[in-house]
Amino acid sequence: MTDRLYLYDTTLRDGQQTQGVQFSASEKVEIAEMLDALGVDYIEGGWPGANPTDSDFFAAAPKTRATMTAFGMTKRAGRSAENDDVLAAVTNAGTGAVCLVGKTHPFHVREALGIPLDDNLENIRASVAHLVALGREALFDAEHFFDGYAEDPDYALTCLRTALAAGARWVVLCDTNGGTLPKRVAEVTRAVIAGGIPGDRLGIHCHDDTGNAVACTLAAVDAGARHIQGTLNGLGERCGNASLTSLIPTLLLKEPYRSTLAIGVSSEALAGLTRISRRLDEILNRAPLRSAPYVGTSAFAHKAGLHASAILKNPATYEHVDPALVGNERIIPMSNQAGQSNLRARLSDAGIDVGRDDPALARILDLVKAREDAGYAYDGAQASFELLARTELDQMQDYFSVERYRVTVERRKNALGKRISVSEAVVVVEIGGQRMLSVSESVDAEGHDQGPVNALWRALAKDLGPYQSAIDDMHLVDFRVRITGGGTEAATRVIIDSADGHGHRWSTVGVSPNIVDASFEALVDAIRWKLIRDKVAPA
Amino acid sequence: MTDRLYLYDTTLRDGQQTQGVQFSASEKVEIAEMLDALGVDYIEGGWPGANPTDSDFFAAAPKTRATMTAFGMTKRAGRSAENDDVLAAVTNAGTGAVCLVGKTHPFHVREALGIPLDDNLENIRASVAHLVALGREALFDAEHFFDGYAEDPDYALTCLRTALAAGARWVVLCDTNGGTLPKRVAEVTRAVIAGGIPGDRLGIHCHDDTGNAVACTLAAVDAGARHIQGTLNGLGERCGNASLTSLIPTLLLKEPYRSTLAIGVSSEALAGLTRISRRLDEILNRAPLRSAPYVGTSAFAHKAGLHASAILKNPATYEHVDPALVGNERIIPMSNQAGQSNLRARLSDAGIDVGRDDPALARILDLVKAREDAGYAYDGAQASFELLARTELDQMQDYFSVERYRVTVERRKNALGKRISVSEAVVVVEIGGQRMLSVSESVDAEGHDQGPVNALWRALAKDLGPYQSAIDDMHLVDFRVRITGGGTEAATRVIIDSADGHGHRWSTVGVSPNIVDASFEALVDAIRWKLIRDKVAPA
Repeated sequence: MTDRLYLYDTTLRDGQQTQGVQFSASEKVEIAEMLDALGVDYIEGGWPGANPTDSDFFAAAPKTRATMTAFGMTKRAGRSAENDDVLAAVTNAGTGAVCLVGKTHPFHVREALGIPLDDNLENIRASVAHLVALGREALFDAEHFFDGYAEDPDYALTCLRTALAAGARWVVLCDTNGGTLPKRVAEVTRAVIAGGIPGDRLGIHCHDDTGNAVACTLAAVDAGARHIQGTLNGLGERCGNASLTSLIPTLLLKEPYRSTLAIGVSSEALAGLTRISRRLDEILNRAPLRSAPYVGTSAFAHKAGLHASAILKNPATYEHVDPALVGNERIIPMSNQAGQSNLRARLSDAGIDVGRDDPALARILDLVKAREDAGYAYDGAQASFELLARTELDQMQDYFSVERYRVTVERRKNALGKRISVSEAVVVVEIGGQRMLSVSESVDAEGHDQGPVNALWRALAKDLGPYQSAIDDMHLVDFRVRITGGGTEAATRVIIDSADGHGHRWSTVGVSPNIVDASFEALVDAIRWKLIRDKVAPA
Repeated sequence: MTDRLYLYDTTLRDGQQTQGVQFSASEKVEIAEMLDALGVDYIEGGWPGANPTDSDFFAAAPKTRATMTAFGMTKRAGRSAENDDVLAAVTNAGTGAVCLVGKTHPFHVREALGIPLDDNLENIRASVAHLVALGREALFDAEHFFDGYAEDPDYALTCLRTALAAGARWVVLCDTNGGTLPKRVAEVTRAVIAGGIPGDRLGIHCHDDTGNAVACTLAAVDAGARHIQGTLNGLGERCGNASLTSLIPTLLLKEPYRSTLAIGVSSEALAGLTRISRRLDEILNRAPLRSAPYVGTSAFAHKAGLHASAILKNPATYEHVDPALVGNERIIPMSNQAGQSNLRARLSDAGIDVGRDDPALARILDLVKAREDAGYAYDGAQASFELLARTELDQMQDYFSVERYRVTVERRKNALGKRISVSEAVVVVEIGGQRMLSVSESVDAEGHDQGPVNALWRALAKDLGPYQSAIDDMHLVDFRVRITGGGTEAATRVIIDSADGHGHRWSTVGVSPNIVDASFEALVDAIRWKLIRDKVAPA
């Protein structure tokens, strides 16, 4: 016997209140379609009338299986629900459901609205009744419910009863300022149900201000609530809302939820969760949070040597769920904490097979440790690690050597008196006994200078003779720099991410007190790795 | 009547297992000092013998009020504790406390160790007894305790009892794979205490694989555990450990913890929490997580219009705690009024007084916003912010202008066939109508090249004519680089920290697609700020 639990997504409304986030209407359409494919029950699209983007979105909202929902607030005092223009803008969006936020905390009725408590009850009643009369599904978001319940439990409960009596499908306990802890959420939710609000009419809406939004949501579900509100990747006001990206796998994969609750997300859709999470970050132009539960790139990365060796014997030893179930993957990064079995697994992933007793394993480990001590970081630069291992295993091809390079950056005024900078690089390489000299400036399509690293890359990539066709589709996609150590021993570590036309992406590292030198080392590694990977024969 | 709750920080050990994190020994020293000032009870510094960095750290560990703790594992089967070289490396670090991880899950004893269950008990007993015989405080990390308890509660409990009987001060329930949910943590912790393990000998160690690490930790405390393990900013293996940065404010500020538990962190230290969190990100060269509970830049940012207007009437309407208590601040992104009062406060801090109605305030706000949009970050570069404000307020001196510069980096073999690099910079400045040309190489005392930024600094600093004496005692102490934006709009942001002989330290920022250009902008700002601060008269 399973209970149905309803998922209400507010990425497009509360998620849009994340600092620095501003969706366009077309981005909202794409996100709504992803949410619908995932299998949420409600998609809260925004507040029609509050800003042009939200109005545009509802005008062009996609047809979804999920119930499209407009957000607004209960009618204001001193006018009827029918004559409240703010409410009219919300209902005019024509959605199947409307969710109205209203007060349940006497302090807020006094401070923010400045009206008698009974008038607030009438605003709730009349607003919900108006939605029902229009044939809409009505939801009531009980703002600051937990603080309201602490001040005056009778009044807070009366607000919920009023909304239900007026025909609301759901009343939702909102911890608006995010300050309530899970144990208290459970207690209050149980008290609300004991007070006559059925669990299958009751929802929960939590924020992460104490780092407990997911736990508070689960606590309410444990207590009997059957509707949860959250956002993808935990976007939202201040510290964000409860993350549906974390909650959905827990509800589908873990007890007691797996056996006792049913949600609208299928196992197939769950396997697309990581992709959806990353796509949302792409839309926002944010680097995905590596440590995100279930979907982060580090969520199944086993760095500790002890863990990694056990994982190789049996993944269940250190993984609470199979990463494939959420569309993620296991990673065993290379670092100076790694042991030999970890190392062999990492090499085997790269197509390099080494016997268990090969003495090169110990040499490679020592080399990795020594180089990480000097500032290298191989767990973020797998390609450089592979080159180091191949060299030590005598499996490295001798493609080319760099005899010298020179890079110049000049800043001056041009003929028009405008400040410009120009970067120029000269690289001399030897390939199969032949010396090749190449020069390049760094300028993008609009003639803007892109700096010395770009100039070096252009000079290197411009003419690598017999290897040219192999690297033609390669480009640099990211560049990260940090100073390691300190004082006089300071070295600069550069990590470069490269990509090619086949969708491959790889990372290399260089270290030197000279940032240009460190970058050049990483660049050369990037090219060498690509030649090896494509099995290009040395000239 | 309050119970003492002990804080055990493992940023330097489990935190170092974060993918992409590799502390240097000197960074570990700085972090240990921050943790000690914060008031944690234990600082787990690493695993001596497991890698060179950890060994170096313990060799040079700072004197702390907190108990410095070395991490290791229980002795291996088939040898005595006295003759286990891995354990010897741990005890040889000479710390006051040693924490040993050991198995409590029969599945792991079979799969990972391949030894009889009784042998594992003997490993625990003998290892703990060995530490006690050496006069050390012994802690036992019960790996996979919750999974072990699910398989065989008697065996799991026997492991804990064995460690306590052998003299362990603490036994710690570790949810090593992070898969246990808060409700289950509470149940099992209660059962363990009912099974005879006193709460004041019992700790908890959680990971964030379901987004519940903080809640699981609180659940164990609610059940009676009196020792919690976690990390700053929630660093750690996979999704990270329980974040002490989130837990400490909750324990100090919120009920029931505030009235019933005592921890070693004072209110004064709590007010430094945001600074510590940001400094750790600086050391890691990571962008701070804006949405982090309590310490994130968005944690008290009120973007929703409804919230922001209520906040202006009374902050308690939408804030669960006062941001000043954790050293953070309220941000109202859309409110120009709040922005202006913030700005005036910041200028006044710098000794720049501006009237409440000065129209320059709005211009400065717009300029800061536009420049931050373009990649500048004035939060971390107060000196550059002051220069920008002074320029806009017409309070800037015209010290010198840079006509042009050129920097060259060359890498080649020297006469002895050794690879060397040489950086050279030429800078042309105009001072009081006079043109001055300066050239410098970048070489340290041992003749090693330090790169183009250093060369530019040397050329600039070498001959600034009338200002020379004012900048003679100035030097560069740190240099941080980040790529902002993405794709073709990518720009490089450089932040430079400078210091002088009077112990002053200041930070400046430069942004450009060209890293050398960005660095040069920050260098010039650094010099200008120093001249202003020392009230040097323009030539």
